[in-house]
Amino acid sequence: MSRFIESHEDLRYFVDRFDNFLFDCDGVIWHGDELIPGVKEVLVYLRSIKKRLIFVTNNATKSRESFKSKFDRLGIQADLDEIFGSAYATALYLKRILKFPENRKVYVIGEKGVEDELASENVRFCGGTDPADNEFLELMDFSSITTDKEVGAVLCGFDMHINYKKLAKAHRYLIENEDCHFILTNDDSTFPTDGSIFPGSGAISAPLRYALVGKKTPIVVGKPHQPMLDCILDKHHLDRSKTCMIGDRLDTDILFGINGKLSTLLVLTGVVSKADVQKVDAKIVPEFVIESLGDFAPLASSF
Amino acid sequence: MSRFIESHEDLRYFVDRFDNFLFDCDGVIWHGDELIPGVKEVLVYLRSIKKRLIFVTNNATKSRESFKSKFDRLGIQADLDEIFGSAYATALYLKRILKFPENRKVYVIGEKGVEDELASENVRFCGGTDPADNEFLELMDFSSITTDKEVGAVLCGFDMHINYKKLAKAHRYLIENEDCHFILTNDDSTFPTDGSIFPGSGAISAPLRYALVGKKTPIVVGKPHQPMLDCILDKHHLDRSKTCMIGDRLDTDILFGINGKLSTLLVLTGVVSKADVQKVDAKIVPEFVIESLGDFAPLASSF
Repeated sequence: MSRFIESHEDLRYFVDRFDNFLFDCDGVIWHGDELIPGVKEVLVYLRSIKKRLIFVTNNATKSRESFKSKFDRLGIQADLDEIFGSAYATALYLKRILKFPENRKVYVIGEKGVEDELASENVRFCGGTDPADNEFLELMDFSSITTDKEVGAVLCGFDMHINYKKLAKAHRYLIENEDCHFILTNDDSTFPTDGSIFPGSGAISAPLRYALVGKKTPIVVGKPHQPMLDCILDKHHLDRSKTCMIGDRLDTDILFGINGKLSTLLVLTGVVSKADVQKVDAKIVPEFVIESLGDFAPLASSF
Repeated sequence: MSRFIESHEDLRYFVDRFDNFLFDCDGVIWHGDELIPGVKEVLVYLRSIKKRLIFVTNNATKSRESFKSKFDRLGIQADLDEIFGSAYATALYLKRILKFPENRKVYVIGEKGVEDELASENVRFCGGTDPADNEFLELMDFSSITTDKEVGAVLCGFDMHINYKKLAKAHRYLIENEDCHFILTNDDSTFPTDGSIFPGSGAISAPLRYALVGKKTPIVVGKPHQPMLDCILDKHHLDRSKTCMIGDRLDTDILFGINGKLSTLLVLTGVVSKADVQKVDAKIVPEFVIESLGDFAPLASSF
């Protein structure tokens, strides 16, 4: 059973209970380009009482620098090393956890944000935004899909320039380069924007996953998978028992927290309603629930 | 247990047993552009003794006209109404079995062969090779992914011009147009060519299938699924008990025959070896096995 945070005492108890807060961003801190009311004051307050704040997002198109620009624009303090996008986490994962060798390179299906983060960790890459890979092939012309034994990993994120050439090259490296890692920034099936729902990162990698069934299973870095948390802990050495994951999605944010043995707080400013949480057969149950992160604002004003 | 066709009596028995033969093409009749030895004579012979021949291929990039050109070039008689590619079968399926209404249109992810076959059945379509849909979108620019309530089906086949715009449009029609059919020409995960293996039609549709899990399940027309057979039977009214499916793949051709209550003959000129067939735990067991379709040639010469 989840505990609903409603009274001033509930707010106080929750904040005192933890040293570290991991925040999902969209649906928790902002909706698109609009801050959720009260959130700015709450974040300033938490920082003032020495809580550690970490921003954890599956969005794979942006580097930390781009995220930081957004935080700056919205007037929220966020330092580079507090920001974990799935592009950055994937670069960290390759470099720090897989110890990706310097003489090999990563074939990228993804946008510039992924490339920027690989570069920041000194990981060599190819594909991505290279114009040579951002073109359509003529029907049944496979002549440009050649082998490249230097490729030691295929990294697939969200890519609005997905095409057959990239898929065929990635597939060829994965089946022919025996020790080639297969890594996804995240596997979100869809995301909401512009009044509809669009295919997400997991849809971009679906052709490779389908073609490789029984042959190669990808490592997925982003929430709800644990490599994202491994990267955060590798950098910040947090005590899990004093850490709470705050998010608006049960199947990514809350599951991420539960699997990582963190506490979890669900906010209802995103895709999940109170009725969803109270379903008897709910499979993913957050430890705490609050209407909005902005509801902590009274603590800030009484401070 | 499969029955291996080896002696002259076996050949005779097999040919006398059936009135109708359905042939997969690649790996059975030809390899790419090379005829398999003896096959030409065997087909001439079967035709001369009044057997009905039907050619059944999952290749979704070609219309019947294009397949016929290939048969012509290789010197094999094949009439248009004996050829069932998955593009044609899908057009037939929409028109004859689903009774697709004339005031709606099909959104195509596929190549010209699919469009040609839809046109041959007077089914209206959009997308496909339309230059407006064969371009890359700028990152996070979804402005061209608008609604279109006239779209009553999304048809997805093999498309070397797959891109995010097509996927996002197809996804939007499938979630927003409530009665919108979701149809795949076939779901082959890969195909061999040019000395390697490449993502197939099923990989092209994988993003949509992944994004729509729990929301919409596609109808798959091609082998091993049964709509292909429904189309053949709708046109030719064959007696299943007098019909044999001949192919080189267990998981498409032979399964197609078994599920359709046809007899099955596996040839070993394609992807399956004799050892594969003799495995004790084989799940898909053909009724008959022969090294090559060309091995029926002695019947032709003794005729």
